[in-house]
Amino acid sequence: MREPIRIGIVGYGNLGRGVEKAVAQSPDLELTAVFTRRPPDQIQSRAQVVPVENSGDYRGKIDVMILCGSSSNDLPEQGPFFAAQFNTVDSFDLHAQIPEYFERVDATAKDSGNLSLISTGWDPGLFSLARVLFSSILPTGKTYTFWGEGVSQGHSVAVRRLPGVKQAVQYTVPVPETVERIRQGETPVLTTREKHLRICYVVPEPGADQTAIEASIKTMPGYFADYDTTVHFTTEEEFAANHTGMPHGGFVITTGTTGGGYQQQAEFRLKLENNPEFTGSVLAAYARAVYRLHREGKTGACSVLDIPLGYLSPASPAELRKTMI
Amino acid sequence: MREPIRIGIVGYGNLGRGVEKAVAQSPDLELTAVFTRRPPDQIQSRAQVVPVENSGDYRGKIDVMILCGSSSNDLPEQGPFFAAQFNTVDSFDLHAQIPEYFERVDATAKDSGNLSLISTGWDPGLFSLARVLFSSILPTGKTYTFWGEGVSQGHSVAVRRLPGVKQAVQYTVPVPETVERIRQGETPVLTTREKHLRICYVVPEPGADQTAIEASIKTMPGYFADYDTTVHFTTEEEFAANHTGMPHGGFVITTGTTGGGYQQQAEFRLKLENNPEFTGSVLAAYARAVYRLHREGKTGACSVLDIPLGYLSPASPAELRKTMI
Repeated sequence: MREPIRIGIVGYGNLGRGVEKAVAQSPDLELTAVFTRRPPDQIQSRAQVVPVENSGDYRGKIDVMILCGSSSNDLPEQGPFFAAQFNTVDSFDLHAQIPEYFERVDATAKDSGNLSLISTGWDPGLFSLARVLFSSILPTGKTYTFWGEGVSQGHSVAVRRLPGVKQAVQYTVPVPETVERIRQGETPVLTTREKHLRICYVVPEPGADQTAIEASIKTMPGYFADYDTTVHFTTEEEFAANHTGMPHGGFVITTGTTGGGYQQQAEFRLKLENNPEFTGSVLAAYARAVYRLHREGKTGACSVLDIPLGYLSPASPAELRKTMI
Repeated sequence: MREPIRIGIVGYGNLGRGVEKAVAQSPDLELTAVFTRRPPDQIQSRAQVVPVENSGDYRGKIDVMILCGSSSNDLPEQGPFFAAQFNTVDSFDLHAQIPEYFERVDATAKDSGNLSLISTGWDPGLFSLARVLFSSILPTGKTYTFWGEGVSQGHSVAVRRLPGVKQAVQYTVPVPETVERIRQGETPVLTTREKHLRICYVVPEPGADQTAIEASIKTMPGYFADYDTTVHFTTEEEFAANHTGMPHGGFVITTGTTGGGYQQQAEFRLKLENNPEFTGSVLAAYARAVYRLHREGKTGACSVLDIPLGYLSPASPAELRKTMI
C-alpha cells in the first residue's frame, strides 16, 4: 500500500471533528495533527494536538491542511496564511466574497507553490457542481436551490441572542407547495417567502414575555422578516430530547426544455442527519484530490469546478473505468 | 464574441438529431457538418450533409467530432478511426467493454495529438459522476443505480423481433417498494427482480397467439426471465397515441454512515421527456470541455471522471466563481 496522505486540521469545532471522523474512515488518509488556539490539553483527539502558532514546524510533514475555522472570523486571515505554507482545503461560504477571497489565496498559494481548494463542502461545494453541471447541459433551463429541512446555525444564533431566550434552534424548510410545483416542471419566479419557511423552537427564560420574543423573531430584518416564520415555545427537557441534532440537506433542481420542446429535469438532493460530519467527509475527499493535483504540478487557488471528480476517489482511473463508469 | 467551436456529427439517428438541437441552443457552438452513410439527400438537416467517407476533408475545419453511432455496431470501429483525425466525444455504453475501448481510442488519439472523451451521456456519463462522487465522500455507503421509468430500446427491439408482434415498446420501472426502502435509508442487497419491473405494450399481428407472445416475452433469457414482467396488448391507434415517445430517467442514490453513526444520503435524479435529446445535450456540453482541454494540451482518451465540471460551462471560471459557487 502507498504511504497515506498526511492531513492536518486547523480548528477543532464541529467541522474539525467531522473531518477527523472522515479521515478515520479513509485508509489512504492519516491525521497527523490538529492545530488549535485553545490550550491543547482541553482537546480530546486521538491525533497530536498542537498550538496553532507552532504550525510552521509541520511544513514538509503534512500534505494537506484542512481549514475548519469560521468564514467570517478565521478564514479571511487563515486562508492566505496557511496557503503560504501548505496545500489547503477550506469551506469558505460567504458567497459574495468568494471572488475576492479566491484572489488573495491564489496569490500566496502560487507564490509558494502550493495548491489551495477554497469553498468546498455541500453549499458551496457539491451544490455548486450541480448548478454548473445542470445549467451547462440545459442552457434554457431554470435552476433552483433549496435548503432544508435542516438547522441553520446563523439563524439559531440570532434567536438565541434575543432577551428572554434561554435556548433556541431554527429549522429552514422548503415550502412544500413550491417544491411540488417545481418537481412537476413549472419554472416560476419565486419570492424569498415562497421558497423557504422558518420554524423556531425556543426555550424561554422563566417569566420571559413570549409574545414579545415571538414578535422580535418574526420581524427581525435579514433573518426572518421576509419569511413565513413559526415560533414554538418548549421546555428544556423537550429541547434536549429533540432539538440538539444538526440535520440538514436540500436540493438543486433544473428544469429545461430541449430543442424538440421536451422538458428535461435534473435534481441533486442531500438528506443529512449530521451536517458537520458530512461536510467534513466532503473536505476529506477533496484533500485527496488536492494532494494528487499538487503532485501533478498544479498550484494556486482552485474551486470544486476545477477538479475532475475521479481525483476524489481512492481508486485508480483504470479501476474506476472498470467498475464505476 | 469568440469564434464558435466547430462541431461535426457522425451518424444522424435520434442521438445525432439530439446533438444538432443541443448545438442550436448553444451560441458558442456551431454545427459545421453532419456525416452519414446514407445518401446525403435523404437527410433533413440545416447543416451540410457529407458522406462519411469524405470526413477526412474536414480535418482542420472541425474542432470536435461527436460520434452518434451505435455502441455495438459503429463505435468499436469509428471511435479509433475518428480519434486519429479529430477530437471526439462519444457515448460508448457497453460497460464491460469500456476498459478495452478506452485503451484502443487512447492509443490512436495520443498518436495523433487529439483528445477523445468516451462513454458520456447520462449512464454512462452523469450517473458515473454521481457514483464516483457519492462513494468517495461516503466510503462506508452503499450506492444503487435505478433506471426508469423509461423506454429501453434494447428490450423493445427484443420484443419486436418475436413472431406475431407488429409493434412493441418496453418500459423499465424501478420497483416502488424498493425505492421507498432505500430512500428511507435501508441498504439491502437486492436481486435483479427486486430492483426493476418490466412493462411491455404490444400490438399483435392480426390472428397472432397472444398467450404465446406473452410467454415468449416473460421467459426470454437475459432480457425478461429475471424480472417481473407485465405484458399489455393494445391497438395500433392506442400505441401511436401513447407509446411512441422516448421518456427515460432514473437515479443514483447512496446512503452511508459517518463516524458518529449518522446516516447521510445523496441522490442524483433525472426525469427526461426525451432521452436522445437530453443525451445529445450532454454530448454537446462535453464537446465544449474537450475543445478547451485540448487547447490546454491534453491528448489521448479520457472519461467524464477526468474533466472538471467548470469546463462544461460557456462561462469563464471567474464568472462561475462569482455567480454559481
